[in-house]
Amino acid sequence: MAENAPLLNQLIDALKLLPGVGQKTAQRMAFHLLKIERERSLHLGKVICDAVERIQNCKTCRNYTEQTECAICQDRTRKRSQLCIVESPTDLLAIENGTNYKGLYFVLMGKLSPLDGIGPEHIGLDLLEQRLQSGELEEVILATSSTMEGEVTAHVISELVKKHGLTTTRLAQGVPVGGELEYLDLNTLSQAFDTRTEY
Amino acid sequence: MAENAPLLNQLIDALKLLPGVGQKTAQRMAFHLLKIERERSLHLGKVICDAVERIQNCKTCRNYTEQTECAICQDRTRKRSQLCIVESPTDLLAIENGTNYKGLYFVLMGKLSPLDGIGPEHIGLDLLEQRLQSGELEEVILATSSTMEGEVTAHVISELVKKHGLTTTRLAQGVPVGGELEYLDLNTLSQAFDTRTEY
Repeated sequence: MAENAPLLNQLIDALKLLPGVGQKTAQRMAFHLLKIERERSLHLGKVICDAVERIQNCKTCRNYTEQTECAICQDRTRKRSQLCIVESPTDLLAIENGTNYKGLYFVLMGKLSPLDGIGPEHIGLDLLEQRLQSGELEEVILATSSTMEGEVTAHVISELVKKHGLTTTRLAQGVPVGGELEYLDLNTLSQAFDTRTEY
Repeated sequence: MAENAPLLNQLIDALKLLPGVGQKTAQRMAFHLLKIERERSLHLGKVICDAVERIQNCKTCRNYTEQTECAICQDRTRKRSQLCIVESPTDLLAIENGTNYKGLYFVLMGKLSPLDGIGPEHIGLDLLEQRLQSGELEEVILATSSTMEGEVTAHVISELVKKHGLTTTRLAQGVPVGGELEYLDLNTLSQAFDTRTEY
């Protein structure tokens, strides 16, 4: 096939860049893109180029945006005394969609992981330090994930926040809503049991 | 998120064009494209545009190519008396990789399916008729799939070929190599039993 359609091969190879896409799926995607209206496939190609060239990190919260400061940071109706710290834009999205939180965010774009060489400088802790110094904040909500790295990250940030005398909170841990006890992992169950609240 | 990063949203929406990609996967792909080296993501976008703009159907066999005639049709070392008829470029690829067939191809780019409005004009039977009239051919190999539509397509083409007095062959049906009899569907088993060959 190589000498038959190098461009088709290039397309298949390039599609393998996408996460979870191997040779077979890339082939299927390539043929699909060639089969449907060319206009729509062309649009996909153009949007990828456009997005990759123009989307950058917000100068205040590090979230993805095509402006220098994202819309959430620019939104003056939001509560500027609360700062919720998340690992990724997806987590921010989940909190925006699933809660009625109206404060600001700080997106780490990762989590501390010394083994992978990800240190404080990679997750923007210097920028966060500036935010903490601004005097605008009252509460810092640690919404990193409940994994080992997420906990370590939360711990390191909480130490940072303490220096500035602000309130630090962490998302509650316990039984997921709608969760059956018998299928719950033992760590969560034990944690939920120990931190039981009055009913 | 809409007002936060319209371009990011556009990217996520555009990625949903790919087969089997829903909202969650599109999100994951979009963030992945923004996370890795921008050069590589840009390359993907450019290759999609380039491929969609330049890849067309070979004027002789209808396979995808960026030239007017594909490399297989141009290859003078291939046997020009054999024509293998396949439904799609993927099928052609499978035969190229899995057999030592050295003849030419004709790619239908679909199969007859009156219910979906796919008639003879959509699978290039007029172009195939011209090939049959060329006088170059001796054998036409029907390699359409073994589905209802594939069989109907094979039948219609075999009628067409008969008029020109050429040999028509069809891929053998039977037990797949390495296949366990107990898991084989009954139609295949019965077919294989009826067409058993001397050992």
